[in-house]
Amino acid sequence: MGVLRLVLEYDGARYHGFQWQPNVPTVQGVLEDALARVTGQRGRVAAAGRTDTGVHALGQVVSCRLDWQRGLDDLVRALDGVLPEDVAVVAASWAEPGFHARFSASGRTYRYVILNRVAPSPLRRLHAFHVRQSLDVTAMDEAARLLEGRRDLAVLTGPRAQRTVRDVRRARCWREGDTVLVEVEADAFLPHMMRHLVGALLDIGRGRLGVGAFARAVATGERRGLGPAAPPHGLYLMRVTYDGGPAIGGDVT
Amino acid sequence: MGVLRLVLEYDGARYHGFQWQPNVPTVQGVLEDALARVTGQRGRVAAAGRTDTGVHALGQVVSCRLDWQRGLDDLVRALDGVLPEDVAVVAASWAEPGFHARFSASGRTYRYVILNRVAPSPLRRLHAFHVRQSLDVTAMDEAARLLEGRRDLAVLTGPRAQRTVRDVRRARCWREGDTVLVEVEADAFLPHMMRHLVGALLDIGRGRLGVGAFARAVATGERRGLGPAAPPHGLYLMRVTYDGGPAIGGDVT
Repeated sequence: MGVLRLVLEYDGARYHGFQWQPNVPTVQGVLEDALARVTGQRGRVAAAGRTDTGVHALGQVVSCRLDWQRGLDDLVRALDGVLPEDVAVVAASWAEPGFHARFSASGRTYRYVILNRVAPSPLRRLHAFHVRQSLDVTAMDEAARLLEGRRDLAVLTGPRAQRTVRDVRRARCWREGDTVLVEVEADAFLPHMMRHLVGALLDIGRGRLGVGAFARAVATGERRGLGPAAPPHGLYLMRVTYDGGPAIGGDVT
Repeated sequence: MGVLRLVLEYDGARYHGFQWQPNVPTVQGVLEDALARVTGQRGRVAAAGRTDTGVHALGQVVSCRLDWQRGLDDLVRALDGVLPEDVAVVAASWAEPGFHARFSASGRTYRYVILNRVAPSPLRRLHAFHVRQSLDVTAMDEAARLLEGRRDLAVLTGPRAQRTVRDVRRARCWREGDTVLVEVEADAFLPHMMRHLVGALLDIGRGRLGVGAFARAVATGERRGLGPAAPPHGLYLMRVTYDGGPAIGGDVT
């Protein structure tokens, strides 16, 4: 019996988020089913990021206790053989005893992908949020950088979150061709934090909200005027960091 | 009444190719329906490339005769408002009298996208062909380059094609991270030519077929041993060239 660490990629479109819920498809549900089918052992997996309904992952990390005597290549191949096409195990390794994908993680990186051009994109429609109006990416980046440091981010989540101070290590917004990307690395994320942040940054990019007003909203926690949360289909959990190791994850534009 | 030139992007998954057929969804069918709905004029459109079932396009060019007094921005917005989400008009312009998207075109560029890693990719599963085995991309590129020039390419199409000499201007294969790309620019393409070519190149990349044997097969037209055609979901019509103008199209990896 050891502690298994898996890296997952998934297309979140069809799932009610990572976390198991009764009677609806969840990533945790299909992964635990696949593990039970392949290993005969039904257990709970823990995940570094509890991605919401419709949110994707390139580098979600999960852990579970498992008894498996064969090689991990065999395990990965068997899991990918029974998982649905929209969830895949991309890497597996044995972790040190006591490793826990969520509690051991020291940082998470999320990226939001905006397609910023007049015409919609049939090929990217499920994986990027289409914004027609031209965006002032310089102002968006200036606002994003204001979040860096140890901050109370209550303004970027719902009213029910309790401890709302987070350590934001890096928050950036930049353009690559017709794509605008927002990426944030933090110790942990509040519920809906990235989608609220991108909603506010889009208001800034369209000139409806000033960077100063955004800074004041963050300081006071007053959400009014910050714009609606951006939809989930542009959001990706990119990678997870564990102290003493490299970040684990992937890439997308 | 003028000659309208449209550039289309589409996700081919749901369509029985570009060309109209009765009782099945085609890109031509949905485009002609959208034009009729927006303009009140039902006519036939001509396309530069007759993409097959399941093949995508980033820069398909179509033309038709149309009477439209308002601006083309209005036309594009109206068409994108009624087209299904998997087909979009990304540009529109008036062409010179006598312009015909197919007969006036002097070149087409197709790209094939191979995801070459052990694990499948949930996020790219519909838009790249997954090949697990490591590929010798140097050998694949060497074989691709053999096609450059004026060649009889009968070996890369079905038995029914009649005139099979094509002018291949550029044929390359290269790796970008976990993606292997095959791109060919030619005056025109034979039916299924790209998919047969990629099937043969994959056999070369896996070491099942030598570059010399491929060269002999092209020279003799003997298909045996060339491997099955690659599936359509990795294939993209990238851009179309017209004499005296820049290529029209997009980009994908």
